[in-house]
Amino acid sequence: MLCYNITILDDKHERSQELSKTLSRDLNTLGVAAMASENTVSADTFAARLTVEQVEESQDLAPKFDADGLIACITTDAESGEVLMLGYMNADALQRTIATGEAHYWSRSRQCLWHKGATSGLVQEVVEMRIDDDQDAVWLRVQVAGSGASCHVGYRSCFYRSIPLGQTGNTAPQLQFEETTKVFDPADVYGDAPNPTQL
Amino acid sequence: MLCYNITILDDKHERSQELSKTLSRDLNTLGVAAMASENTVSADTFAARLTVEQVEESQDLAPKFDADGLIACITTDAESGEVLMLGYMNADALQRTIATGEAHYWSRSRQCLWHKGATSGLVQEVVEMRIDDDQDAVWLRVQVAGSGASCHVGYRSCFYRSIPLGQTGNTAPQLQFEETTKVFDPADVYGDAPNPTQL
Repeated sequence: MLCYNITILDDKHERSQELSKTLSRDLNTLGVAAMASENTVSADTFAARLTVEQVEESQDLAPKFDADGLIACITTDAESGEVLMLGYMNADALQRTIATGEAHYWSRSRQCLWHKGATSGLVQEVVEMRIDDDQDAVWLRVQVAGSGASCHVGYRSCFYRSIPLGQTGNTAPQLQFEETTKVFDPADVYGDAPNPTQL
Repeated sequence: MLCYNITILDDKHERSQELSKTLSRDLNTLGVAAMASENTVSADTFAARLTVEQVEESQDLAPKFDADGLIACITTDAESGEVLMLGYMNADALQRTIATGEAHYWSRSRQCLWHKGATSGLVQEVVEMRIDDDQDAVWLRVQVAGSGASCHVGYRSCFYRSIPLGQTGNTAPQLQFEETTKVFDPADVYGDAPNPTQL
């Protein structure tokens, strides 16, 4: 399957929808099926980054995407404060998260938009969304549907192991499991889908 | 100023110190001042990444550094759970954080090791340190010394602004300030040091 992410930048929503329809018709003429999306990204959604003062001290949302077009996203449990995962968003995922109130990420291992929970049912409902001083990181406080897990290994949090402190010298640290029981069986949820962990 | 990070890999701590002294002497012979460090990184500190199962399910600390040699680090307040900042560590910073129990980062804007609080006094004492499933992200739970702030702009958390949810269409979102009072005056603490925010 080939995926095309086509972003239409325009200052009028109606004009964007019109362009989207025209594009779909043209692609159909070429024998390509186009999936239209209601969540078009407006040119006005994100502000241009003009000054340090604007980025740090103003109300402008002017995110800084890295060389791969991504911004880091910390996701915590809205109630307990536990860090559930660190994900990444492209502009489309950031826009969809703002618009829908459900966490969307960019999957670096699968190289596609990732509506968290679309496969597993473990949707993350965003309670609050924040951005940091230089606007290169986002923080989501979420409530997780279903079993409440966010980790593909089956644990509640991706951070299920701790690193002992105070170690010097040449002995290798041994991680400690802070979650000892999996919330779900990954085989039941994901079947034989490829594991996203890369060596 | 030129900075050299010289890492001595050896399986004996005493032998590392001996090599370090020899290296300092040789560098001095060349007219180069060498700063010795007690925190040498042992070859055994981090395990090689061999299998997905080892990385996800074992007690081996086998961190994945990115193309720039960095791993992301989420830092939260140990008591409130509030996310204070997202930083990055190289192998040296990770090792020093483990060894000393105080947060060390790699400053991407200044391109140097960064012992948080060395300038401002706002040292972060690590209460707990965790690593995620595929070991490409670290989570520090910290207690902050002094005024308790972690943000160079003067706020307690770097994430002092929220992004309103549910917005579609083409109106630019307006960030909301969730912290309205600065904990310290950056000019008093940092003087005329360059601002780390990059456009």
